[in-house]
Amino acid sequence: MYYDLKFRHIPYVESKFSVVEFDAGHNLMPHGSTEGVQARYNVLGPVMLPIRLGGDIVQFNWYLYFLDSEQARTKIMETLAEGKIDYDFFTKFSEAFTVNSVLSLGEQEHNLKPESVPVVRLHSCCATGDIFGSCRCDCGPQLDAALKSIARDGYGAVLYLSGQEGRGIGLFAKALTYLLQECGHDTFEANALLKLPEDARTFDDAGHMLKFLYPNKPVRLMTNSPHKIEALRRVGVDVAERVELVRGVVAQNEGYLRAKAARGHMIELDQHQDQDQDQPPAVTPLPATAINGVAPASLTPMAATSAVVREAKALHAQDA
Amino acid sequence: MYYDLKFRHIPYVESKFSVVEFDAGHNLMPHGSTEGVQARYNVLGPVMLPIRLGGDIVQFNWYLYFLDSEQARTKIMETLAEGKIDYDFFTKFSEAFTVNSVLSLGEQEHNLKPESVPVVRLHSCCATGDIFGSCRCDCGPQLDAALKSIARDGYGAVLYLSGQEGRGIGLFAKALTYLLQECGHDTFEANALLKLPEDARTFDDAGHMLKFLYPNKPVRLMTNSPHKIEALRRVGVDVAERVELVRGVVAQNEGYLRAKAARGHMIELDQHQDQDQDQPPAVTPLPATAINGVAPASLTPMAATSAVVREAKALHAQDA
Repeated sequence: MYYDLKFRHIPYVESKFSVVEFDAGHNLMPHGSTEGVQARYNVLGPVMLPIRLGGDIVQFNWYLYFLDSEQARTKIMETLAEGKIDYDFFTKFSEAFTVNSVLSLGEQEHNLKPESVPVVRLHSCCATGDIFGSCRCDCGPQLDAALKSIARDGYGAVLYLSGQEGRGIGLFAKALTYLLQECGHDTFEANALLKLPEDARTFDDAGHMLKFLYPNKPVRLMTNSPHKIEALRRVGVDVAERVELVRGVVAQNEGYLRAKAARGHMIELDQHQDQDQDQPPAVTPLPATAINGVAPASLTPMAATSAVVREAKALHAQDA
Repeated sequence: MYYDLKFRHIPYVESKFSVVEFDAGHNLMPHGSTEGVQARYNVLGPVMLPIRLGGDIVQFNWYLYFLDSEQARTKIMETLAEGKIDYDFFTKFSEAFTVNSVLSLGEQEHNLKPESVPVVRLHSCCATGDIFGSCRCDCGPQLDAALKSIARDGYGAVLYLSGQEGRGIGLFAKALTYLLQECGHDTFEANALLKLPEDARTFDDAGHMLKFLYPNKPVRLMTNSPHKIEALRRVGVDVAERVELVRGVVAQNEGYLRAKAARGHMIELDQHQDQDQDQPPAVTPLPATAINGVAPASLTPMAATSAVVREAKALHAQDA
């Protein structure tokens, strides 16, 4: 039994809320399906978000999404059934939900143009790097470069994955791993010493959101991680190109980046020490060969995916 | 019954963990007190955090803290009693805890110098402003200016209050209020339409952390909010000066800032439209008169607080 999260007395707000369904084959389903639904995403947006980028202000579209399974887990269903949408409801939201964000540009104009391919970044949240400006990692400059790249191209999105602090172990545990790194352990060894997984993230939800945001589209993925490319292809996202994203390399994070490179990340440190950090990343074509043993889902943009999307409302239609 | 969170097999990490206790009169208590303890804070740090500020990298001390009451609420006690510190433990941490952060500079050198007064910012977390760079609010530039001001003075801290997104209503509800603002409501009316409090924050915990971080010290507070000054004084923090912090004023947040000014925030917009946004804020003396009806706790720095702190370990002592 599912309840839709609705804001019935505020039509403009309600019009910004969507329920997106996927079946076991990762196909977008029309909302209201009575069978075959395996995952249900609740999406709010677009909300207008003017973002400072260098000296400019660029108006992004902000979407928030969370899973029905998370909704069920925190017993918000009962609250909804009783019609109680109040402070208590929202504190449960803010504490227990992983509310992810999408910062998107151009999806309404470009989704229907066959020649347009969005550039996409899956960015795991990082309080130290993204908020505090720490250079123990490269997250802050990567996020900044990704947003600039999207602004330059006019079509693309950052998916900001809020539950993935410290590769999924949370902020407190991450601080402990920093202390262990001060003792000489690398970023992966530190997790192991705390009996934590080296990487606890999954990117399936992000993949589903991409299929909703860009129905029938390949994407260009800004990443150095073969794992992200594999994960997206596994849920049927057509990753047509990889866009390299090496930014913010300084002495303080060299060890961290070398540890990542040793685990398969495509980071060639020596080439990037002197780069211009303010420039958005250049697009480089993805090799047509398999990456880490996983064959690309499609090498021809726009091929083979039209059957995947069935009656899904494109974002531009929702806004009409 | 309390359990201490200890990391017994990793001495360096364990040495960075403190339990801080306060009695009902908001006095710092020696750890291990058997009576009178009203609040117990768990503090981890310092963790070294090199922070990018403009073109420089400044090494801050990062502390994380959470309350025993939060610990109890999520039943982590049982996990600890059983000696199970593992992935499941940390996922509970990352989901259910409000882990706040302190970015501090100079506390080890300056706490014992009578003439030194730290400059402090209580910064409520703001994903849109601090992470995404949104200019619907002024949070991002305020955080940046606060860190620069601390770096310039060499003595002070930002307390980053992670549970206070959207004045305490959480990110999802905040997005809803943004949609309501797109319909013409102001930031406070939007909360009311959702049956949410206009401001759900408290600053008591932040006040206690300040007394731990700066035993026997007045502080200079970077804020435009008389409520924050009142709240800190209520728990016995000697706020000796207010430092104005108006930054990031643009057309997109003028309505938001005017709404705040109408609720008592000390923001004179017209003076700040053309300011140099890159300069750290100037220190202005706090008027000796009462602010919003609350008399200053002390107008003479260093007065009257020595009796408040009893046997509290100063941070420099912990690191010895």
